Amino acid sequence: MVCAVIGLAFAFFLIAAVTRAPSGNERMREISAAVQEGAKAYLNRQVKTISVIAVVIFILLFVFKDHPTAIGFVIGAFCSLAAGFIGMRVAVLANVRTAQAATIGRLDALRMGFNGGSVTGLLVVGLALLSVSIFYTIATKLIGSDAAIRSLVGLALGGSLISVFARLGGGIYTKAADVGADLVGKIEKGLEEDDPRNPAVIADNVGDNVGDCAGMAADVFETYAVSLVGAILVGLLTLGGNPAAIVYPFVLGGISVLGAICGIFFVNVARGKPTAVLMGAVMTNALVSAIVFWPVTQSLFPAGVIIDGVLRSPAQLYFASLVGLIMTPVIVALTNYYTSSHFRPVQKIAHASETGHATNIIAGLAAGEHATALPVLFIGAAIMVTYHFAGLYGIAVAVMSMLSMAGVIISLDSFGPITDNAGGVAVMAKLPKEVRVVTDDLDAVGNTMKAVTKGYAIASAGLAALVLFGSYVEELRGHITGRGEAFTFQFSLTDPKVIIGLFIGGLLPFVFTAFSMDAVGKAAGAVVREVRRQLQAKPGILTGEDRPEYGTCVDIVTKAALREMIVPALLPLVAVVLVAVIKPLGPVVLGGLLVGTIVTGLFIAIAMTSGGAAWDNAKKFIEEGNLGGKGSFAHAAAVTGDTVGDPYKDTFSFREPRRATRNVFAAYRRNVSAIENTWFHHKRVAESEVSRPCQMTQ
Amino acid sequence: MVCAVIGLAFAFFLIAAVTRAPSGNERMREISAAVQEGAKAYLNRQVKTISVIAVVIFILLFVFKDHPTAIGFVIGAFCSLAAGFIGMRVAVLANVRTAQAATIGRLDALRMGFNGGSVTGLLVVGLALLSVSIFYTIATKLIGSDAAIRSLVGLALGGSLISVFARLGGGIYTKAADVGADLVGKIEKGLEEDDPRNPAVIADNVGDNVGDCAGMAADVFETYAVSLVGAILVGLLTLGGNPAAIVYPFVLGGISVLGAICGIFFVNVARGKPTAVLMGAVMTNALVSAIVFWPVTQSLFPAGVIIDGVLRSPAQLYFASLVGLIMTPVIVALTNYYTSSHFRPVQKIAHASETGHATNIIAGLAAGEHATALPVLFIGAAIMVTYHFAGLYGIAVAVMSMLSMAGVIISLDSFGPITDNAGGVAVMAKLPKEVRVVTDDLDAVGNTMKAVTKGYAIASAGLAALVLFGSYVEELRGHITGRGEAFTFQFSLTDPKVIIGLFIGGLLPFVFTAFSMDAVGKAAGAVVREVRRQLQAKPGILTGEDRPEYGTCVDIVTKAALREMIVPALLPLVAVVLVAVIKPLGPVVLGGLLVGTIVTGLFIAIAMTSGGAAWDNAKKFIEEGNLGGKGSFAHAAAVTGDTVGDPYKDTFSFREPRRATRNVFAAYRRNVSAIENTWFHHKRVAESEVSRPCQMTQ
Repeated sequence: MVCAVIGLAFAFFLIAAVTRAPSGNERMREISAAVQEGAKAYLNRQVKTISVIAVVIFILLFVFKDHPTAIGFVIGAFCSLAAGFIGMRVAVLANVRTAQAATIGRLDALRMGFNGGSVTGLLVVGLALLSVSIFYTIATKLIGSDAAIRSLVGLALGGSLISVFARLGGGIYTKAADVGADLVGKIEKGLEEDDPRNPAVIADNVGDNVGDCAGMAADVFETYAVSLVGAILVGLLTLGGNPAAIVYPFVLGGISVLGAICGIFFVNVARGKPTAVLMGAVMTNALVSAIVFWPVTQSLFPAGVIIDGVLRSPAQLYFASLVGLIMTPVIVALTNYYTSSHFRPVQKIAHASETGHATNIIAGLAAGEHATALPVLFIGAAIMVTYHFAGLYGIAVAVMSMLSMAGVIISLDSFGPITDNAGGVAVMAKLPKEVRVVTDDLDAVGNTMKAVTKGYAIASAGLAALVLFGSYVEELRGHITGRGEAFTFQFSLTDPKVIIGLFIGGLLPFVFTAFSMDAVGKAAGAVVREVRRQLQAKPGILTGEDRPEYGTCVDIVTKAALREMIVPALLPLVAVVLVAVIKPLGPVVLGGLLVGTIVTGLFIAIAMTSGGAAWDNAKKFIEEGNLGGKGSFAHAAAVTGDTVGDPYKDTFSFREPRRATRNVFAAYRRNVSAIENTWFHHKRVAESEVSRPCQMTQ
Repeated sequence: MVCAVIGLAFAFFLIAAVTRAPSGNERMREISAAVQEGAKAYLNRQVKTISVIAVVIFILLFVFKDHPTAIGFVIGAFCSLAAGFIGMRVAVLANVRTAQAATIGRLDALRMGFNGGSVTGLLVVGLALLSVSIFYTIATKLIGSDAAIRSLVGLALGGSLISVFARLGGGIYTKAADVGADLVGKIEKGLEEDDPRNPAVIADNVGDNVGDCAGMAADVFETYAVSLVGAILVGLLTLGGNPAAIVYPFVLGGISVLGAICGIFFVNVARGKPTAVLMGAVMTNALVSAIVFWPVTQSLFPAGVIIDGVLRSPAQLYFASLVGLIMTPVIVALTNYYTSSHFRPVQKIAHASETGHATNIIAGLAAGEHATALPVLFIGAAIMVTYHFAGLYGIAVAVMSMLSMAGVIISLDSFGPITDNAGGVAVMAKLPKEVRVVTDDLDAVGNTMKAVTKGYAIASAGLAALVLFGSYVEELRGHITGRGEAFTFQFSLTDPKVIIGLFIGGLLPFVFTAFSMDAVGKAAGAVVREVRRQLQAKPGILTGEDRPEYGTCVDIVTKAALREMIVPALLPLVAVVLVAVIKPLGPVVLGGLLVGTIVTGLFIAIAMTSGGAAWDNAKKFIEEGNLGGKGSFAHAAAVTGDTVGDPYKDTFSFREPRRATRNVFAAYRRNVSAIENTWFHHKRVAESEVSRPCQMTQ
């Protein structure tokens, strides 16, 4: 808790530092203000939309479930929203200041951008850690430790609700604006990126903030909070009430907040290539954590601990946490290999562009699929090794230790939209060419960082798969044995229900992706129509005589994103509720669904994010003057690949269906007996009880 | 057996009928001869390559396993090869005759093309049924029923070996030639499809035959034989030696051969739209089977049968077989909806083409992903229903009954390359425009039929998933209990080994696809270079003064396909052997791998085949004059989509990894004790035995 407070204090110190920095000339401030305004307008409207749903769920939880869970729900939702909201406000302040710093030097711009991003990073981990620990402490005093831990599910649910909408809405927003701006601006009219004559340019810049900054913050807040709660739950169940097992995940998180602060210091004193400096921050954090974890593990478990009937030494627990720490740089390095223009995969796509659009696309699809192999094998190895060390709890420790790095990783991620926007400000404010070279350079680094963050988020979720499934089984077991019945579920692959669950679960990411891509397509279409309308109504825009109406594009894409996010967001929820209520299905199919979603989701997510980033950088590689450079045939093909890659890499967050599964189950896992009667007692259930399906969704 | 002989006799009658038909003018015969020669050259070289591997496996089986299995292997390999080889020879005879028939009328051409294709269809089911039944009958006399059934695995392995190479090599060949011909011919030089000035045109036509005809025939031969053997095995195990349970799958297959012949008669007498006539053949077959299955089921199981401790009535078994029959038209209808230009999905892609290459690609990817939902839900429902009727045996009966339709379905599939080639002959021989209209029309029907066949093959494999896994578990159980040990494997989702297996298995289709797409890319690159070289060396080719050297293109693509198929073909085999021999993995991980491969493979396969066919037909939709027609901006984008879709839909056969898994397991499941010792006895295994990894692959 102390560490969380230190982290938050440092975040506010950084906010002050960013705000104090010079914010450039009049024109720059004006552009920045427009972006700020657009972002604020979007977030306000999003908050309104989500609030309605949140209030309904709160009332249902309050009435049908217990009060602590309902209160936890509100806290989780509020903190998740706050992390994204404040982080984004700082990011839109930091962008213009990064552009201004770029007039002084590359290192200054790098630091300004990273410090701005660090606010979000520290807020996410600080708020997550603080809210869970305060809630747990108070709830333990009031209702006892076990009930407190079970109420934490409400807090996770709150975070999940926000993150589903924030990530998906933000993702649709950013990609619709981006694709829309590119299709008309770049491809039809031949404008440069961030050309102020493009009416969708402000919407594009707003999108970077609401998608990559606010959306990703809410997303990782949720993953962090859920994994923390999951680790505590697994600790409670496997270790039979050993208090150290519950404290341990908190301590790992706390130490890494300090590690993240060390990493931020590192960026502010180190010199060198941008990528090297940023990677240095990750390594600093990992190193600090690795050193401090050992004495802490020893003092928490001096005599070791018995898991699955075997005594595990403190060293074994420490090794499990080390595996989590090592996974972060491993995934970062792998993602970097597959998506950076310095290595073969991206260059292969660039070369394929020479023979046309189609070969570029084929090469990109193949590259994304190749990129799945090594991360998945490493995840498998990590599961095996940590399970060997300390059973399911060992995996949970590794997950928590991997996620404890979220502070510095989210800082890198938020660095992306800040530098992207800084580039936009530089172009629109007509700053000198040297400044743009600096911002373009940092923007490319930011792109790789964004891909790296996604790889990290996906891999940690893959690693957490078994913890999640384990806690599902344990909850189910607790529920059934709590009613005095025998728990007989095997979840065996020889059971057709498991296979059907795997099929339905495996389907969700595919259908979810399809709907998300459709949503981007529709929203982008709306932007394209509006931009074409403006350019036709005022031909002076292209010559620079008329000023485009940026506001209408922002408005259109805001509405479109909020409208289009509803179907994909509800899809997994509806699927899960249907599986739960349709009589011949039930909990075994739901278990298979959970695993099936993770299996196909893991691959789709890696293939799409890596493939998308690789297309993007293949285009950049050509634009740097290779293979004919800008304007060549290869470049046109590479632009197609980039445009495909954009929605491909950003709209799909494979955690959605998994999260929905878990939350639905968590939400109605107790208290609502009607649904469970249809599962377990369907032979003796009264007709009157069956005919109350309206209670199912509580 | 009698039915199989009737089927084969009818196939030879059809061959005679096709051969007797008029084969057009001099120029047409010349073109057809060139295609025949190229196809023969490829197949001969392929046979040589595969023979070496086949002989090695035969010797290993003969020495280390039992002689009946080794003999079964040879029979399976030979029949699989024969079905593809003879079918393809007839197809290349039928193409020119179909072009000639098109001069008379559409219906005549349709019948000629379908009759040519039917030869392959009847050969596949006839040879599969005959070889399995003769082998089983003789082996039972010599070594007893149980041992005979277990030796059948050798026959399936023989079919598998051929099909891996034939399908993959043929797939790479056809797509490399197609993409290569299109990239230079259509896109760079603006030539029409099948323009004789394109040096790769003959290679392209050869490719259709070796890929869609010979490759698909070997593929379905294998699926058919393996499912038949699997159904017998499940029957043997679940029903405890009730002879009717073993006879039943044979009888279902035999009846459907007669049904397929009825379907062929239907095509030769019916009038109407081509699609309606061909679908009528499928319905005729289904109807005949549905009617005859009932009395046969009743007479085989007059008193019902006890499965899993419950008495099942003959009606329940009959219903299970009906589900299999119904699945065929359901999958056909669904595939048709997602891939035909008459429905929304394809039209959406066509509309997306109006905004450019990138939106076309995004729409196509999304369409493919949407197309996974309904087939998978139907497969899940079919598994549930048939399991409810008669347990695992019920699923096996449904699989066999669905596959019994293979005769007519493969006839439809082989119809595709015949009409495609007929169109090529018509264009190259400069036949009148009316003839080309007929062949183009039939070609479009053929495209849908090809997509339909793929959907059918994928769905039947998905349905067979549990049968396959069940027979894996049973073999493992038999093996372990045979050594007097207890069988304790649970394959539970709570076991980290199962999760790791699911991840590794889920990975295989992704990596396999990536390698296959790379292989097509490389082989197509070789074709592109050769075509460019010829056009540069002899500029007279484009003006029609010089004749292109078709032979060198055929030769290059033949070599490239055989070279490039090796890595993807070996990949699943190597992965499975590694999982088997690496100590901490073993049979539980292998079981997870099997299921993981089916889960992701099912989705990838559906998404890719449907998406690819949808892109193809979106292009055709525009070429019919919609949205600006040929030469418009939308058309250029649609051509890109089609070129991406080509390798996307054809190189991936998701059964490869599954098949390899099963075969490797089947091949060394007994007799080779070294590998099993590392699994089960690794504590007491002698060092000398571990160090003999060279025996693993037997």
